[in-house]
Amino acid sequence: MKVLITGGAGFLGQRLARELLSRGVLKDAHGAPQTITGLVLLDVVRAHDFGDARVRTEVGDIAERSVLERVIDDQTSAIFHLAAIVSGQAEADFELGMRINLDASRLLLEVCRQRGHQPRVVFTSSVAVYGGDLPAVVQDDTALNPQSSYGAQKAIAELLLNDYSRRGFVDGRVLRLPTISVRPGRPNAAASSFASGIIREPLNGEEAVCPVAGSTRLWLLSPRKAIDSLIAGLELDGAALGKQRAVNLPGLSVSVDEMIAALREVAGEKVAGRIVRQPDERIEKIVGSWPGAWDTSRAERLGLAAERSFADVIRGYIADEDIEVR
Amino acid sequence: MKVLITGGAGFLGQRLARELLSRGVLKDAHGAPQTITGLVLLDVVRAHDFGDARVRTEVGDIAERSVLERVIDDQTSAIFHLAAIVSGQAEADFELGMRINLDASRLLLEVCRQRGHQPRVVFTSSVAVYGGDLPAVVQDDTALNPQSSYGAQKAIAELLLNDYSRRGFVDGRVLRLPTISVRPGRPNAAASSFASGIIREPLNGEEAVCPVAGSTRLWLLSPRKAIDSLIAGLELDGAALGKQRAVNLPGLSVSVDEMIAALREVAGEKVAGRIVRQPDERIEKIVGSWPGAWDTSRAERLGLAAERSFADVIRGYIADEDIEVR
Repeated sequence: MKVLITGGAGFLGQRLARELLSRGVLKDAHGAPQTITGLVLLDVVRAHDFGDARVRTEVGDIAERSVLERVIDDQTSAIFHLAAIVSGQAEADFELGMRINLDASRLLLEVCRQRGHQPRVVFTSSVAVYGGDLPAVVQDDTALNPQSSYGAQKAIAELLLNDYSRRGFVDGRVLRLPTISVRPGRPNAAASSFASGIIREPLNGEEAVCPVAGSTRLWLLSPRKAIDSLIAGLELDGAALGKQRAVNLPGLSVSVDEMIAALREVAGEKVAGRIVRQPDERIEKIVGSWPGAWDTSRAERLGLAAERSFADVIRGYIADEDIEVR
Repeated sequence: MKVLITGGAGFLGQRLARELLSRGVLKDAHGAPQTITGLVLLDVVRAHDFGDARVRTEVGDIAERSVLERVIDDQTSAIFHLAAIVSGQAEADFELGMRINLDASRLLLEVCRQRGHQPRVVFTSSVAVYGGDLPAVVQDDTALNPQSSYGAQKAIAELLLNDYSRRGFVDGRVLRLPTISVRPGRPNAAASSFASGIIREPLNGEEAVCPVAGSTRLWLLSPRKAIDSLIAGLELDGAALGKQRAVNLPGLSVSVDEMIAALREVAGEKVAGRIVRQPDERIEKIVGSWPGAWDTSRAERLGLAAERSFADVIRGYIADEDIEVR
């Protein structure tokens, strides 16, 4: 089986690649395990290939048809489309967000349609497709009402994937990811960047700015569980999804104050004391339009799961990243 | 004030043009009546200009940027975007539907963004954005779940208009039109074409095929009220719409059997006897995915209204089209 990951040099793309290479197999559309013979990692910068002969790295602009035609052939039976412009950047640079989050996603579906082999395609979507007057707990059938360009572009990509699936051009799945926390590395332009920063930087001995109120509720998932969910999402039976290909992934509903309390519990007062509260209206507006929790009974019936406590998430991060708490 | 109608040679476009020329004024964004000094009718065929010096007809492909740049300048303060590929044709010709229903709608918004004068833009949308497991009466915040390519393309255009409005590129409004009945003229490729045909053809002394079950519920609006709603939709205060620019227009919820009974009531048994029942699975599937009624309290608060009985709709059609019932 040949697999493609777009955004393959990114944080989730690299973790997903490592996990797929380690498992060595993926279920096919009939549920039968198949050996992964090739894994293409496409991105605008060259991805690490882990020194693995199964990996081919490709550098290119995903919004160009020739690039997608180079990485999708009629043997490419599993596609994880992770490439995206993050929320803050898509709001700041409207044209870039439209080009990558909308045009490239559509082009990917178009190339699949023209190949005609109906590959399984996983799109990642986001809490940002919701907004406006939301119920306390968002349901799977709550109306999409994005209040950011990123959310609008993701919602449009969902509609496209649904229609391309209904018509049999692809066998698509949309996984709406909670905000991923704790991400290793450095801050990025996502409005949600602080949701990792307020844990990661203090654990590294650095100050971190918290730009939103402590009562702000976030819907979080760890990198570990995100990778498990992406693979499970690709492997689940398309027929079980029915007409609606989008699934709200399980996550943890926590307030920023609860996150800080969990950091204090795991790493102590000194570490938690490195968080500086400095409200940023622009970020509060975007993050405040997202739901703080959603009903995930459908995802759970499909076999998907999240952590049970945010302290466990922090402990997992400390173990995975081999961090020495000071 | 300069006004543009896309699809200006079409049935609704021509009626709207005639009504605007007759009124001679439109409210501006501040609610003040302004004289209509120019009315551009764009379509793929040349529209009638009613021999009126205010009208300029333009022939061109609306999916080409140069065409839209020719008809939208920074004086074009009101745009009615009616051009579309109908549901049956968008299902049969996927690429054509995407090109006109999605690409052209986006291009229109893009040209407005680049002009930078934030015109008021009315998009027409449809019951076809809904589908799947629907409540008996669809609410304004029922999730969009289109089950046709036409519905998916309209839902995407709605999301685009919402985001372009939120960012201040246009002052947009989406009017979700019920199925228009009774349309004069001939059948078209819309899956809903029969909803006019089963009234119009019998009144013309011809047989008409009814391709769906008598219990099928439709959500209907007369051409008269559709035109009134388009103008009211453009004139209403954008601030009253808030974050969600789409409005479900009031209509009449009637079953096909009730439509036939109304025809019998207005025109007699002989006319109603010209309807031949001949189920068509393809059409039943598309039409059956649409809601038969929706809650329109929001539209009514905004001052929009429909007829009260389908017999009145038929009487209006007979009067408007000067039909002699035989």
